[in-house]
Amino acid sequence: MSEYMRSMKGLVDAVDHVGKDFISITDMSTDQLYSLFELGKNLELFNRSKIDLLSDKMLALMFFQPSTRTRMSFQTAMERLGGHVIVEANPKVTSSVAKEESIEDTMRCISQYANLMVIRHYDADEARRGAEAAECPVINGGWGHWEHPTQALLDLYTMWRRFGRIEGLNVAVVSPDMIEARTGHSMAAGLARFGANVTICSDSDRRTPADVRERILSHGNVNLKEEFDFEQDTFNEFIRTQDLIYLPGCSAPAGAKADEFKTLMDRYLVRYETLEEEAAKGHQIYVTHTLPRRAGEMDLRIDNTPHQLYFRAILQSVSIRMALVTAILGL
Amino acid sequence: MSEYMRSMKGLVDAVDHVGKDFISITDMSTDQLYSLFELGKNLELFNRSKIDLLSDKMLALMFFQPSTRTRMSFQTAMERLGGHVIVEANPKVTSSVAKEESIEDTMRCISQYANLMVIRHYDADEARRGAEAAECPVINGGWGHWEHPTQALLDLYTMWRRFGRIEGLNVAVVSPDMIEARTGHSMAAGLARFGANVTICSDSDRRTPADVRERILSHGNVNLKEEFDFEQDTFNEFIRTQDLIYLPGCSAPAGAKADEFKTLMDRYLVRYETLEEEAAKGHQIYVTHTLPRRAGEMDLRIDNTPHQLYFRAILQSVSIRMALVTAILGL
Amino acid sequence: MSEYMRSMKGLVDAVDHVGKDFISITDMSTDQLYSLFELGKNLELFNRSKIDLLSDKMLALMFFQPSTRTRMSFQTAMERLGGHVIVEANPKVTSSVAKEESIEDTMRCISQYANLMVIRHYDADEARRGAEAAECPVINGGWGHWEHPTQALLDLYTMWRRFGRIEGLNVAVVSPDMIEARTGHSMAAGLARFGANVTICSDSDRRTPADVRERILSHGNVNLKEEFDFEQDTFNEFIRTQDLIYLPGCSAPAGAKADEFKTLMDRYLVRYETLEEEAAKGHQIYVTHTLPRRAGEMDLRIDNTPHQLYFRAILQSVSIRMALVTAILGL
Repeated sequence: MSEYMRSMKGLVDAVDHVGKDFISITDMSTDQLYSLFELGKNLELFNRSKIDLLSDKMLALMFFQPSTRTRMSFQTAMERLGGHVIVEANPKVTSSVAKEESIEDTMRCISQYANLMVIRHYDADEARRGAEAAECPVINGGWGHWEHPTQALLDLYTMWRRFGRIEGLNVAVVSPDMIEARTGHSMAAGLARFGANVTICSDSDRRTPADVRERILSHGNVNLKEEFDFEQDTFNEFIRTQDLIYLPGCSAPAGAKADEFKTLMDRYLVRYETLEEEAAKGHQIYVTHTLPRRAGEMDLRIDNTPHQLYFRAILQSVSIRMALVTAILGL
Repeated sequence: MSEYMRSMKGLVDAVDHVGKDFISITDMSTDQLYSLFELGKNLELFNRSKIDLLSDKMLALMFFQPSTRTRMSFQTAMERLGGHVIVEANPKVTSSVAKEESIEDTMRCISQYANLMVIRHYDADEARRGAEAAECPVINGGWGHWEHPTQALLDLYTMWRRFGRIEGLNVAVVSPDMIEARTGHSMAAGLARFGANVTICSDSDRRTPADVRERILSHGNVNLKEEFDFEQDTFNEFIRTQDLIYLPGCSAPAGAKADEFKTLMDRYLVRYETLEEEAAKGHQIYVTHTLPRRAGEMDLRIDNTPHQLYFRAILQSVSIRMALVTAILGL
Repeated sequence: MSEYMRSMKGLVDAVDHVGKDFISITDMSTDQLYSLFELGKNLELFNRSKIDLLSDKMLALMFFQPSTRTRMSFQTAMERLGGHVIVEANPKVTSSVAKEESIEDTMRCISQYANLMVIRHYDADEARRGAEAAECPVINGGWGHWEHPTQALLDLYTMWRRFGRIEGLNVAVVSPDMIEARTGHSMAAGLARFGANVTICSDSDRRTPADVRERILSHGNVNLKEEFDFEQDTFNEFIRTQDLIYLPGCSAPAGAKADEFKTLMDRYLVRYETLEEEAAKGHQIYVTHTLPRRAGEMDLRIDNTPHQLYFRAILQSVSIRMALVTAILGL
């Protein structure tokens, strides 16, 4: 075994998750996650090329909900590791699910083909039942409104790579509507876990549900604040105090008119000028957005500045998913 | 050439089918099928990993009908052999078939890309015309109501691996409706071929069509029986005499009410207790089901007992398809 | 570096297009295209097998419009080069585009995964905006009614391989309707570029649009003629004077009756007997058709004669796309 392979194997051993599921970010301890980040950092060298670590492994992507990014990111990660991928991206049209097979039977079957499976599903209970029936490890690729842990993972990893740490950073999670913000919930929980100072900003009548708040607080000694009903100017002053603005995306409420929605979003607008002013004072504020759809949360000129982390996060998603897949399949 | 490769090549030579189509299970003699089984047994070592036998070959999966299992099984088989796969899984939406191309033109074109093609089609005549136009060998991946020979192949192979033989075994093919049971017809024909004692159980007004019966009987010196209109108790006694219960799946007749259908299915229910009682007496009865949809044919507790062959058949489908693909593409 | 690799690298250097887009056939000079053809000719050896030139590269196929041929041809080309492929073939159903993401964001994201991207899109402006936002090189895989340059490329390459030259050949581009004939426009421009004698045949009220005509003529010292409203006999005499008949396909005009359309197509029918008569005199006339749908432009008996170039073009499409992908990704 080469020196390099020995060092990779050491990192995989440190993560200590071979053969296990990754359903929630709480499936790994903070120490395990930091080991996973180290593994990701070592695999970054290959996130645009290839390293043959998993050439005899098959990953099944079972996607019951539309996705470009998560699906392609996992496929890219697996193939850049030399591995193989089978995909079900459209079960209602192309697959046996159209014949009303039970999710348990589907997953128990597919796990005969694959060494590892990623499930994305609009219904968290269905997904969980499928995962339990599978005879290979399962990664949660986004389950209903419940959790999308590899999204949180990639955002935390991108932060860690940018700042060198997560603890003690000031992070704002911003959306007028925090009820439906699945990725916002996962990210707040992850940040709490790593000791960041988290402020969730939303409208008071669309605040983070109590049970989600409990779940975030359960992650230990957390600095969690909530701010409600910002106006444009107070929001603008607030973001000057932050290191990272995390935007989980927001849809117009049912029945809302376009101009009403714009007025709402404008109150939480991340302004290009503000970021530039702070940068001139030596305070770099970063912005990340989970995409795909942007709806007026931010000035798009930010795209081509150093403040932008969202497109960088896309590439880093490959690195950390390479790490996750390797950590579960083992070396 | 290594000793191992020499022995694999010897098995491929024994199958003697390089460059040929596999449209019906009758395209190979019993001897050829046994050689194919031997090849499959040798490839089982790699059905969860990889062996680079076909790394310069391309398999095209042309699927005009929904399928998860057959599609993924062939893709897994090909990639575990080091080969490549192109897929058309949804021609009506994504492909040129949406532009009303003739099946002959489509297949003659695709066969320029691929070294081997699997066609699944809702219309057996269309499929046959496409296969004839192709310039590479073709495997039938399920054609209309006509035949699905790799399903029969994998079920026979799974049986052969379990019992060490097929000849002389008592096998019941069970479905209230044997008119539409495509996989049941193929399996009965295959079993007949190998000298099993076959009993087809159905309702008398949904019995196996005469032409299918003729086809099964044409396979030589066959022990074929038919039993009609079993009641729950007599069916239960009957299965005690069998080695394998083969369930090709059954749908509710058009217009049938849920409770009527349940009453129907209950008459042919494979009971967990019966299998356990016989096992206690030293008589192991196996059950296989072609899936995907199970509709009350069997007690689901059987899933986690040694009687279950249906999930094992899924993994064995990879082994035997690896063998079939290798036997046609050659070494 | 082996002798072979050195010679391949020399050809790639001669094409001189590493890291660049291929949006229009005018993106390369005639000399560059001839170098690309040489590269294609060298890669033909592997168009049914494999050469590991690009095993650490990922190609993304972003197809917003139905396609079998172009999609599978690129995938086959990339995999026969040892490379990897991620596909979006049905964005409206399976992808984040279903969530109204902007094309710029989609392409900027996907280009983080891929080293090269092919975009096919029903709207040329959307495609162009997406291509500009991408951070990796982009190949035009067919954009709206505007241009489909790799189709022209493969047809020119197939011609060059058949005749050994393009200059001075008599080529007829034939369709009753030349308004919508995207591939016909691209081919005429390409032929003009290489100095062929081009005659475009159509009905006078469906003639090539003036701006397309200008574009074709802009390719230099061109022998371009137009012939309108042929009758069956005069058309038949005309094709005796040609070396290649290029058929870009034709659809029935909206509202046309089947018999009216047949009468129209019959006036431009390429007859089997005429080709055979000329061949007997020592004048081989070739026919190519862009497919997929054939609508009575030609006698289908031509399929199995040496006059046929359309199925050969399918295989050659793999060779020339292998060359294009290699020329952009570099060695």
